[in-house]
Order: sequence, then structure tokens, then C-alpha cells
Amino acid sequence: MDKEVPVVVLRSYVSGSWRAPEDEGAPLHDAVTGEEVARISSAGVDMGAALEYGRSVGGPVLRELTFHQRAALLKALASHLREHREELYALSARTGATLNDSKFDVDGGIGVLFAYASKGKRELPNDTVLVEGDVEPLGKGGTFVGQHLCTPSRGVAVQINAFNFPVWGPLEKFAPAFLAGMPSLIKPASQTAYLTARLVELVVEAGILPEGSVQMVCGEPRDLLDHLTEQDIVGFTGSASTARLLRTHPVIVGNAVRFNAEADSLNCSVLGPDATPGTKEFDLYVRQLATEMTVKAGQKCTAIRRALVPAGLMDDVAEAVRERLAKVTIGNPSDPSVRMGALATLDQREEVRRSLKALTDAGRVVFGDPERVEVVGADAERGAFISPVLLRADDAGRAEPHEVEAFGPVSTLMPYEGAEQAVELAARGRGSLAGSVVTGDAEFARTVVLGAAPWHGRLLVLNAEDAKESTGHGSPLPSLVHGGPGRAGGGEEMGGIRGVVHHMRRTAVQAGPAMLTSITGRWVPGTDRTVTDVHPFRKHLEELSVGDTAVGGPRVVTLADVEHFAEFTGDTFYAHTDEDAARANPFFGGRVAHGYLVVSFAAGLFVEPSPGPVLANYGLENLRFLTPVKPGDELTVTLTAKQITPREGADYGEVRWDTDVTNQEGASVAKYDVLTLVAKRPRHD
Amino acid sequence: MDKEVPVVVLRSYVSGSWRAPEDEGAPLHDAVTGEEVARISSAGVDMGAALEYGRSVGGPVLRELTFHQRAALLKALASHLREHREELYALSARTGATLNDSKFDVDGGIGVLFAYASKGKRELPNDTVLVEGDVEPLGKGGTFVGQHLCTPSRGVAVQINAFNFPVWGPLEKFAPAFLAGMPSLIKPASQTAYLTARLVELVVEAGILPEGSVQMVCGEPRDLLDHLTEQDIVGFTGSASTARLLRTHPVIVGNAVRFNAEADSLNCSVLGPDATPGTKEFDLYVRQLATEMTVKAGQKCTAIRRALVPAGLMDDVAEAVRERLAKVTIGNPSDPSVRMGALATLDQREEVRRSLKALTDAGRVVFGDPERVEVVGADAERGAFISPVLLRADDAGRAEPHEVEAFGPVSTLMPYEGAEQAVELAARGRGSLAGSVVTGDAEFARTVVLGAAPWHGRLLVLNAEDAKESTGHGSPLPSLVHGGPGRAGGGEEMGGIRGVVHHMRRTAVQAGPAMLTSITGRWVPGTDRTVTDVHPFRKHLEELSVGDTAVGGPRVVTLADVEHFAEFTGDTFYAHTDEDAARANPFFGGRVAHGYLVVSFAAGLFVEPSPGPVLANYGLENLRFLTPVKPGDELTVTLTAKQITPREGADYGEVRWDTDVTNQEGASVAKYDVLTLVAKRPRHD
Repeated sequence: MDKEVPVVVLRSYVSGSWRAPEDEGAPLHDAVTGEEVARISSAGVDMGAALEYGRSVGGPVLRELTFHQRAALLKALASHLREHREELYALSARTGATLNDSKFDVDGGIGVLFAYASKGKRELPNDTVLVEGDVEPLGKGGTFVGQHLCTPSRGVAVQINAFNFPVWGPLEKFAPAFLAGMPSLIKPASQTAYLTARLVELVVEAGILPEGSVQMVCGEPRDLLDHLTEQDIVGFTGSASTARLLRTHPVIVGNAVRFNAEADSLNCSVLGPDATPGTKEFDLYVRQLATEMTVKAGQKCTAIRRALVPAGLMDDVAEAVRERLAKVTIGNPSDPSVRMGALATLDQREEVRRSLKALTDAGRVVFGDPERVEVVGADAERGAFISPVLLRADDAGRAEPHEVEAFGPVSTLMPYEGAEQAVELAARGRGSLAGSVVTGDAEFARTVVLGAAPWHGRLLVLNAEDAKESTGHGSPLPSLVHGGPGRAGGGEEMGGIRGVVHHMRRTAVQAGPAMLTSITGRWVPGTDRTVTDVHPFRKHLEELSVGDTAVGGPRVVTLADVEHFAEFTGDTFYAHTDEDAARANPFFGGRVAHGYLVVSFAAGLFVEPSPGPVLANYGLENLRFLTPVKPGDELTVTLTAKQITPREGADYGEVRWDTDVTNQEGASVAKYDVLTLVAKRPRHD
Repeated sequence: MDKEVPVVVLRSYVSGSWRAPEDEGAPLHDAVTGEEVARISSAGVDMGAALEYGRSVGGPVLRELTFHQRAALLKALASHLREHREELYALSARTGATLNDSKFDVDGGIGVLFAYASKGKRELPNDTVLVEGDVEPLGKGGTFVGQHLCTPSRGVAVQINAFNFPVWGPLEKFAPAFLAGMPSLIKPASQTAYLTARLVELVVEAGILPEGSVQMVCGEPRDLLDHLTEQDIVGFTGSASTARLLRTHPVIVGNAVRFNAEADSLNCSVLGPDATPGTKEFDLYVRQLATEMTVKAGQKCTAIRRALVPAGLMDDVAEAVRERLAKVTIGNPSDPSVRMGALATLDQREEVRRSLKALTDAGRVVFGDPERVEVVGADAERGAFISPVLLRADDAGRAEPHEVEAFGPVSTLMPYEGAEQAVELAARGRGSLAGSVVTGDAEFARTVVLGAAPWHGRLLVLNAEDAKESTGHGSPLPSLVHGGPGRAGGGEEMGGIRGVVHHMRRTAVQAGPAMLTSITGRWVPGTDRTVTDVHPFRKHLEELSVGDTAVGGPRVVTLADVEHFAEFTGDTFYAHTDEDAARANPFFGGRVAHGYLVVSFAAGLFVEPSPGPVLANYGLENLRFLTPVKPGDELTVTLTAKQITPREGADYGEVRWDTDVTNQEGASVAKYDVLTLVAKRPRHD
């Protein structure tokens, strides 16, 4: 065979070009046929040079782009990859994956890019620096304040991936790194590296990303880690033992390199006592368990390894899961009748069988034979096929089911009694990526979720309410954290913008308000305001500067105004209409103007009536009424441009205005942010 | 001497009682006189039992308390300790500290407790679980959503402290742990443990904190770390070499124990080119440098080790700093004329002298003699006294000043040219806790701050604007992060609520909206609303449930209403008054009602006019106008109790109402949160 099919030699993409290895490399095999698919080696790759290239070429270009610009590139890349899905599916089949499995991997990865593109645009500023949290007052006089800034780490995000998700794995690590402004170096697991290599070829061919923002090393990492600096970060997905090795690497330890690990864990799924046979939740539990066992042939870090069911329902669940598993067709994933493909390698099958030996000390097999399986369209021995294996351990106190992970289509059923014991058993996994509770009982769900939360990165409550839209126990989502304590590695990936911040450095900046305004580009209260002849509402986006200010008023609020407003709006709350009752109120001490009247009059004071660049007031934020307004009080409003956010590809942007309504004594009666859309200058082209 | 003064044997406070060591212990010496102050040993302390006691006794009681209740205890403890300051100052003097140094340590530590008490009350809910971030929609139909929850880690926060801040050190680690609901085990550095031991005695004697929430081990940690689980966390402050050792401890690595290190670093202070002699900034720079060298005799992780000044100003700065240092009286801290005391131990002095040997390879001494110093009220050799030493390295490219830290009153002056080189030199520290830039030039400050930020946990810009209130280069503050990348340990402490979250586990919970409402106790959109006969504004705080709903309307908005509102408020923006102009606006397509009119009418629709439990509407949040309201549109408002926060020790609480104003087609025209104060039921006692 080797002579007939041309063997692909995987290349690395480093320092701006594709490098073929300097030796023959090691063979990689088709999981289904055993044929050689490719050869892999990193011989000749200069790891130190690659890291330095990322730092000196990729980093600076990326950091020039704003978050919104990076988000737009992610979106373009996602669209490009979507066009080439079929090609990736085909290669994916050689890893043993069914078409469904491949979609989970490929579409899932592309979905992460789209999600980060969207979050970047909606939740990050159109800027290169992320201002985090509120301005912290540090002195009573207001001349000394603090603000946390996040800036991109000045190194490379080294991403060491697992073999089971050759597309999703690199993309879920790359997307937040790129959005943060940090270049990536991808190190795929060898077993399935040919698929990741093709993915990176597609990325490079597309020419969408700035040069240097993605590199890839195929083969052994060799001295890669020896070249890490305090600005690089490492994200690892894989076994707990490799995580331990990397975590104690002298350079990682010595330079305090930020290290994030995501390791396999013994995830549990709890069936609620209410979910007896015949309920929707019982069926959901059984279906989900069988699915988690068979998707990717159980090679998922998040798969259910421990199925915790009420003691009285053990027989029912065992029987129902057996029935489902018996219907699963196993074999060549290119056969459309096949529901479960092969493990990634023959070695992997050996490892699963070894783990099963330990597990069968504590439980008995109720479905499947670890040594024999019927397959369609393939050779069961030449391909890395194995039967789904359901075990049953009636003594849930035994150690093995909580400690031994068979990384294949294997789960163990165990009984529990009461929510507290379910929590205890869940915790015996000593840290999991994901858990699920299948129940319609809110009290049971609350007890298990809040009790098991400290041991879990993610917990799914599945029942009739969310079943239709639920993405299931095993699916990490870009908007939610993925990771878990203890055995799961102690790390955290994605989680929306949290994953971006992970690639940045947080710095507390202390300064006077005017200096802080200069540094962040946002107007900080206490900084001088710029009152000019031109009303700031008459300025286009490009003409506005933070600090530009309009002052309106004063206007007296009369008792007649308050009474009229009450009648006109129907807001006849006693504090506005009944002097005696208002006097008894602990906060007002007499009749007061409506808060809504105050902000309405304020708008009347700062408005610029005729058509101009300000297109709309689309919202308000952080409105607080600070001092009651009494009839006869005089209101002045001061409106100051605080943050200016041009929108990419639109002819307007957002401007946030600091708004302070004061009374005749200068006391603030209301403070808030007015949010407006402001037109850019019309282009004449 | 030893025979005359009774020697104090330090005890550990573990498993609910004070334990004297089972052996003689090692002697600790007065830094000033060399007398024996105390003996220390942890012999006989059962470390595993202490940790388990924290987990099983301290943790559960703490977790029963809400954040606000814990905050109140922190405040009470802070007040108690403030009453006993004098006693702590007196012991502190024996560590070599002047009264000023002692205040920095003691008052600083008490200040952290007060700050966390205040932040806990203002920024955390009165609840046991922290709901973090927004509800994440996970499906288009709204039946599947996600929410991140933070729950207290179920272990012990082991706090391994440095010798230089025996009071502030333990308190700044304890406060956020306690507020998070996690018990602490304090391990003071031996050299100054007698002061920490007295602090913990005061804490225990006060009886304010729940038993088990604070323990202390005096002496060697022995097998302490061997008993750590995945739920414990370790916070370490000290040398980089000890940090490396702890970080690679097999149990910490194997259980992925959360480990935070804060290590000494080679912090820099940059003088701006504008700050020439005669400017306020020049004087500020010189004063701050001399202060940072001499406070705590330079034994501060954050002290300035590298003074970067424009090449042309080297002579001026050297001369001005020399002059200041020459005026510093050194000696027995109990002598009121003394400005700088002793190092903590004679060993420490030897270490400083060794480091100085390496530093003098790269620079020459311009002030001080490492081997000789004049002191008042003490014996210069018996006490750990050393002179401040200012070095000058005219070749800023030399390695030593960027790599060798003398942990005493030592700094090196180095020249730079231009902001870019200042950033490069700052980065050569390879990670620092703190940096400062002294300049009045905003552009220079911006370049240095944004350029150096990735290497710094905190950056201070000092100048005439903030000098009066600035707390200076070396002071970590509870509201700002304290830590730094690389050499500084890669960790992060305090930072306000960030430090609390560090002691909690973040879990993404996925569920249907109603289930999520049950779990979090906050009403999640999509959950059924409860419309009852009684208007929810007529319910006292205890009678309200999340989901309680008022529906008001419909009310038609007429053209007359819009015109009247424009005239009444003065808000005559063209979109409300001029049909043709409004039609040309890209968002409105014709005349629309004012947003302020919409929220005012909405208030009129949901109000309950007569006196009742709702005392005030104190603000609005997240108001967005979503659909234009045209004359003739009919408005309905739906107001639903979303979050109920009783206030400890007050007869009212806060209620946040989800507010949705819809038109006749059911489309939302405005969404926002109405914030109210609602009375508790009157007590009859």
C-alpha cells in the first residue's frame, strides 16, 4: 500500500514559511483502515526563532489593530473556512470520526470564530487597550484615582492541543488570543495532526490574517518551551500527566509563564429522583448518556464517565441504556448507516482496554465486550474499533469509577440516595470539566448545582424546559468557561471575553484624572471640561474630543411643573402630590419633583433642536437620583463627551456623555451616562 | 540577658486551640539590640488535622453567612484591631521598624480590612453566591441560557507570608479570603512571627470571627503542603526561589492547587524629560526615590530598585538624592529623631551586602558605605543596621542592575534617551510589581504607561496634579491589583472584588430560564411572571418574591402628547417636532415620541400612588430605546421583581425591577431596570 499512495509529509509553518522536516518522520495511520496517512517530524524547526518571529513580527502588527478590526478578521476567516468544510470533513473521517463527529469538531471550531467575532464587536471597545472596571477613587479630594487597563501580552500564545479535536481545539484557543492581540503558535497532537495541518494551510492560503499571527509546529515540541519568556503563555489540552510535566518545566516555573491546563476528567451526570421511567427527563437522561458515550467514540474530555442514578432506578436505567447502545451501528464512518466510528489509534484502544481492566474490579459490564465488536465497512482489528461499554458499580464508594478514566465509549452507572450523596459522589471526581443534572425538580437541581459547583467548570440542568435547545452535557460553548478545578487541570478557557483577558496583562494605573484621561482616551471625572462656542451636538464624530462639554440651564422647577407632570404622565406617587405624606417619607422630607421630570427637563436643557450629527439618544446608563429636587430648585445640566467609539464600516459611531444635573447649590441631583449615535463627517467621493 | 528576660515561646493556633511547640524552638532576635525576642517551632502541630479543621469547621460556618454579613464582621474586626494599634507598634519596633514604618504595616493592614468591608457591602450582593456577568442566551428560542456563578472554594486558603510586613501581609490575604467565605491558615515568616502571632491573638481574643475561619502555624510548614486538596489555595509572598520550590511541590502540581505568588521585583521609577531641576516633578522624583529607599529600610517588594533618568539629568538627580539621604538619621527606631531603622535580621544584612557586591560590578556607589553606618541609640553591629546606598550605572545596558535585587535601602541610577528606551529598560526587569513615571508630560506618560504595562502590576504617574493625594510608588492599595508578571511571581492579589473571586470557583450553569431563576434567586427573563391581585408595590420586602409582576396600560401616545412634552420640557429635538426632518433621520422614519416621554408615561402606568412599602425610585440601569414610538402607538409596561437585596441593619432593602415597555404589536420599545428602595415589614417589639 505504502508504495501506491503518495505519503504526505506534514510541514510546519514557522517564521513566515512552510518548512518540511529534515528527516523521514514518523508515520501516522488512518484510524479506520490502518493505512499510512502522513509522516510527521519537527526536525530542523528552529523553535526559538519561531517564537521570536511571533513576538517581533506578529505581535506588533496585531497590536496596531483595534478589537473591532481583529473581530472583523476573525469573522472573515470563519466565513472562508466554512467554504472549505467538506474538505475538512473528508480528512476528519480518517481520524475515525463520523460526519456528525466531524461537524462537532469542524463546525464547532468555526462557530467559536464567529462567536468571538461577534463578542469582540459587541463587548469590546473599538480600541487597542481594554479599560476594565470603574475608576477607583484613591483620595478624598478627587485628584488621585486608579483604573485597571488590560494590554496584550507581548509574547506568543503557545497552544498544545489534544488529538481528539484537531479543528475545534486549535480554533478555540486561537480566537481569544487573536482578539486579545496576541500571536499564536499551534502544536497539534501528532495522531491527527494532518487535519490541523490542512486547517492551518487554509488559514494561511486565505491571506486574511496578518503574517506572524499564526504559526504551527508539526511533530515533537523539542526545545520549544526552553525559549519561553514571561510574556509568552501556554495553553495545554491533554492528559493530566503531561499537564504535570509541562507545569513543572523549569522555564515555565522560572519565568512564571502563564500556564493553562484543560485535562480529561471523570465527569458525572445525575438523574433526579423525580425522573422515573415514563417521564421526559428519564428519556433525556438515557439518550444523553448513550450519546455522550458514542459521539467521537467517547473520546471527549467532557464525556460522562460516571452516571449517578437513584438506587431504585439502577435497573431501569441500565436496561434503557443497553437498549439504546444495542442499536448503535459501529464501523467505517464513511458508511452512512454508521453511528459510531473508530478510536483515533490502535494505541488508544489498548489504553482503553487497560483502563477497563481496572474499572471492572469495581463494577460489572452490563453492555459491550471490550475485546470484541461487530463493525460494518471495515476491519475491526486493523481499525481502532471498540464496542461501547456500560459498567455498573453497585458500591458507589469504590475508588476506581471516580479515579480511572477510560478515554473511549465507556461509562459506569452508580447508585446514590438523596441530593447530598449525589453532591458527595460528584465531588469525588476531584474536579471536572462538566457535569449534568437531569431533573424537573427545582429544589433538587438547586442543591446539586450549588453543592457541586466548586468541583465543576460547567453544569447543565437538563429537563423538559430546555431540552429542545440544549446543546447537551458534552459541548463547551464560546460564551461559557471551559475548564475545571483539580483533576480537570485547574484552568479556564473561552468564557467569552474572559478568554480574551487571559491573553492580556492587567495593570492598575494610578494618576490624576486629567492624566488618566490622556492615557485611556476616556474622560475621567475631575478632568477639565472643554466648553466651546460650538455646541458639541453640532460636531461630527471626528470633530468631537473627550471633554467637549455643553452646559444648559438654569431652569427653575416650580410646584406647578411637578403637579402638571403628575397629571400629564399619571405618575401621582404621593411624594410628588401630597406634602404631608411626602414629609413622612424617610428620604424626601417634603414634596419632591419626579426623577423622570428631572431627566426630561435636563434633556430640554442640553438639546440641540435642529438636524445635526447627533442622530439619536439610544439609551441611558447608571442613572442615580442623588439629591431630592424641591419645588423652587434651579437645575443646571452639564454634559461631557466621555467615550467616543467609531463603528467600523458604518457612517456613525457611539458617544457616551457624562451627565450631571446640579441644583442651585451645586449639589448633584442626578448623574448618568447619555448614550448617543453620532454621524461621521459625510464623505465626498 | 537570656536569663533575665522571660523568653516568649510562640504558639500556633490550630484546630480550635493554642498549641505550644513540643521542642525548644529556634531563637528570634530583636533587629535593633540582638536580644532574643521569642522562640519558634511548629513541632507537634498536626498540619493535616489543621487543614481538615478549617475545611470542616470554618468553611461551613463561613459559607452560611452572606457577603454583607462577612463584611460586617471584617469591619468589627478592623475596629477592634485599631484599638490595639499601640501594642502592635511597640512589638513592630523590635523588627527594626520606625513608627512610620509600623503605621505603614499596621494601619495599612487594618485599612485593608475596612476597605474590603466597605467593598463587600457596596459591590457584592447580600447573598452567599456571586452571580457574575450577564445571562448568556444559548438558543434562539430563549429556552436555554447560561450564567456564571462563583461559589467559595471548599478548602483552606493557606497564606505563606514574608517577614517584612508581619501585619499587613496576613491581613491583605485574609480579608478577601474571608469575604469570599474561605477559611485562612496563616504561616508567618519566622523572623518577625512574634508580631503576627500577637495579631492573631488579638483576632482570636476578640471572638468576632467564626471559629475555624483563621488558624496560624508558627514555625516550619513541615508537611503542610502534602495535605492540600484541589479545593485549597496557596498564596505566597517572598523570594522568587521559594516561589519556584512551592510551585513545583508535587501535591500542588498534582492537584492543580491554585497557587498565587508575589515575589520581590526590580521595580523602576522613570523621570520624565520635562522634569528638570526646579520643576515640581523633579523634586517629587527625588523625594520619592529617597523615601522608597529608606521606608522599612528598603525592605519592600515594591521599592524602587532602578531609577531611570534622562541621560542629561544624571548628575542633577544623583546630587539631589545624595543631599536628601545625607539628612536621614539612622538608628534605634524608638528614638524620635530616627528616620530609618534596622533591617529585620543580621542575615538579611549579609544578603544585602552580597547583592551589593554584584551591583558594584556594573555601577559605582555615589552615596553610602555598605560596610559602615553611623547610628543613634543603638549598636551598629549588634543591630542589623546598614546605610542607604545609591549606585550609578552609566551603562544602562549592563545586566546586573536589571537582575540583582538588594533587599534593603539600595537603588541604582541609570540613564535613558527617549520614551522608547525608557520602556525597554523598564521591561528588562522581566516583570515588576510596581513602576512609576514622574512627569507632567501627558504624551510621555502615555507612551511609557502603555508600553511598560505588560510588565507591571501597577504603574503610578506622579506629578503636580496628584502629588498631594498620591499614596506613592510603593503602596499597594486594596482596590487595585497587587502582583506582577514574570519575576514578580505572575500572581495577583487584592484588586477589590477580584481578590474575592480568586478565592471562589467560577462555574458556568446552563439551564432553562425558570430553572436558572430557582438556582440563582434572581429572576431571569423568560421565566413566568406572577401577576397577583395585590400590586407588588404594596408588598413589604419580605412579602415580595422574584417574578412578582405589575402590568400597566395600555396608554395611547398622541401627537398632542409629543408636542406638549416638547414644549413643556424644552426638548424640541427635530425628531419630535418636524415630520420632514424626522423622516430624513436614518433611524426614525418620521416623528417619534421622546424616550423620556416613554419612561415618564411608563412610570405613570406602573405607579402605586398612595404611601406604601416602596419608598423611592433611586435610579435606572441599562435603559435602551429599542423601537421608535410613533404618535398613535399604545404603550404597556410590565414590571417584574428581578432581584431583592435586604440591607443588614436597615429597615429597608433594594429591589431591582425588570421593566419592559411594549407597543400595540408586542414589540419592546424600551427595556431597563428600575431601582427602588422597599421597606421591610414594621417590627412590633
